[in-house]
Amino acid sequence: MSMLKNDTLIRALLRQPTRYTPIWIMRQAGRYLPEYNQTRARAGSFLALCKNPDFSTEVTLQPLSRFALDAAILFSDILTIPDAMGLGLYFVEGEGPRFERPLREEWEIRNLFVPDPDQHLRYVLDAVAQIRRALSNQVPLIGFSGSPFTLACYMIEGRASADFRLVKTMLYQRPDLLHHVLDINCRAVTAYLNAQIDAGAQAVMIFDSWGGALSAAAYREFSLAYMQRIISALQREQGDTRIPSIVFTKGGGLWLEDIAAIGCDAIGLDWTVDIGTARKRVGNAVALQGNLDPAVLFASPQTIRTQAQQVLNAFGHGNGHVFNLGHGISQFTPPDNVAALVEAVHELSMALH
Amino acid sequence: MSMLKNDTLIRALLRQPTRYTPIWIMRQAGRYLPEYNQTRARAGSFLALCKNPDFSTEVTLQPLSRFALDAAILFSDILTIPDAMGLGLYFVEGEGPRFERPLREEWEIRNLFVPDPDQHLRYVLDAVAQIRRALSNQVPLIGFSGSPFTLACYMIEGRASADFRLVKTMLYQRPDLLHHVLDINCRAVTAYLNAQIDAGAQAVMIFDSWGGALSAAAYREFSLAYMQRIISALQREQGDTRIPSIVFTKGGGLWLEDIAAIGCDAIGLDWTVDIGTARKRVGNAVALQGNLDPAVLFASPQTIRTQAQQVLNAFGHGNGHVFNLGHGISQFTPPDNVAALVEAVHELSMALH
Repeated sequence: MSMLKNDTLIRALLRQPTRYTPIWIMRQAGRYLPEYNQTRARAGSFLALCKNPDFSTEVTLQPLSRFALDAAILFSDILTIPDAMGLGLYFVEGEGPRFERPLREEWEIRNLFVPDPDQHLRYVLDAVAQIRRALSNQVPLIGFSGSPFTLACYMIEGRASADFRLVKTMLYQRPDLLHHVLDINCRAVTAYLNAQIDAGAQAVMIFDSWGGALSAAAYREFSLAYMQRIISALQREQGDTRIPSIVFTKGGGLWLEDIAAIGCDAIGLDWTVDIGTARKRVGNAVALQGNLDPAVLFASPQTIRTQAQQVLNAFGHGNGHVFNLGHGISQFTPPDNVAALVEAVHELSMALH
Repeated sequence: MSMLKNDTLIRALLRQPTRYTPIWIMRQAGRYLPEYNQTRARAGSFLALCKNPDFSTEVTLQPLSRFALDAAILFSDILTIPDAMGLGLYFVEGEGPRFERPLREEWEIRNLFVPDPDQHLRYVLDAVAQIRRALSNQVPLIGFSGSPFTLACYMIEGRASADFRLVKTMLYQRPDLLHHVLDINCRAVTAYLNAQIDAGAQAVMIFDSWGGALSAAAYREFSLAYMQRIISALQREQGDTRIPSIVFTKGGGLWLEDIAAIGCDAIGLDWTVDIGTARKRVGNAVALQGNLDPAVLFASPQTIRTQAQQVLNAFGHGNGHVFNLGHGISQFTPPDNVAALVEAVHELSMALH
């Protein structure tokens, strides 16, 4: 950590004192940036961006040249693991990810294997190493993975789903089968995140995009339990440097106490949670990351400043807050509004530290 | 109430003793029933079903002939009010509701008016009266409306939206304009629900389908405050009969204490909330309605029974529970599974009363 020129993110995730509240933005390398769209056009597709470490490095760094962000996050997709399992990830323009071979039959589920990151996800590890070199220790690099349950949703539905009919039918009718998928995913995610840490990731985040679609009881059994297994098997240090972990269940605001108990260093909050209430609920167990409504970035710089101040004030004085949006940034966001947000958070948070 | 042969729903909503836990199902008259699809084919469209009181009565009664449900709910759409305001409701097959003339300009918002239910929504009131006659006091009839904020989402976006970009941009950038829309909607919903009560509705429910997309602070200011105004202006009695009110904010599980404080008789819960935890949080202030995951109905009758038992046990002994799904029933539900659910709830709940 001492190597990092700006270690504010790492310190905040570990609830250590910082001079100001660090900020990064989910999907900060994305379609709202013209330079991203240009690189993507050169690459030919979103998948080519992910799979070519040169492109991946280029777009990871783009938001850092524009804004004084306190972290970089690996540019990749949450579905690299099932792709490495042979399910055939592809993208339909404007419709999100799909799999050519979703899990439809029991024998397909029985044949699932844990991909070896060094073999099957080499391009991600190469990207991590290359981004780390390019960053020259300016700010930390965050690695990430989808959660076992979120991966299972896509693997079973074959695409994003409004009602999760197939995965939930399996959950209620054949829980043994779903647990088998989740066990494989859990081992795959653990190996994948540890390999990212070995390759240079300085913090890791688990994106549980769909855990919030479950009942409280099903969430604990089919999503949280597997994230707990991952957290407990993660490398917590690299050399003498601590590697903080962040767990983000979108729509998981009801279950913060349960999430805080699994041993992660920080919880990501979506924008429906009042971050002050959340802090009272979890006490000093974890840091909190979030949670401005991404839609605030459609408003004026003055409104953005006021709303950022409200999130900062709601968290209050002291350590353990990483500012972020409550969800990925919209492709329709004017980049200048991001500049206004980053500036506001850095400036306004000084008084709280 | 004394007129009702089965007043279990009304008694449960008012937290009075009942012999068993009553059950009805959101969207119980719907596409999962072959007889509904036949009537819809005869009517020609979904809107024709809503606008013709004969068809509306017919489909309202269909689930009651199949299942021992403890209530009927008016068959209608949540968007009748903006349609009566002249926005031009229409449906694209498989894509949900849209408006021909969404609110795009400030002058369009300034021109909005509160529709007179007797004039502009006569067909709904006729349907209520006709359904009441057809029900012969077997079970109570629930009337309903969309919430002011949910109506505003559709009126401003023109259709369902994944990110609510237009309505949220207005919320953050021109809150005065959005408040103007919400004030009109609030007065319209109040008049509409009171007219339904006059026409014979024996309980009323406000569907706040999109309030859960807001931040905690924005929810209170832009959705809950207007539902509170409605609740406080509703007729609470018709003759000497109490008319209970239910407020359902999908995704509102974080805010149950706030919802309970607005004076409604019951809160609808989606399936993400543990109903036992919810009961502890709201105490005896309100009844609770819900909250089985609709996806449970894709499983076997035995699993349905087990899961229904878990919801009943989570609520526990005593009064004030109305069993329901946590969201509208899916069109892919086998009707026999609904029969299994209704039977299980009636039978298993006896031990808790």
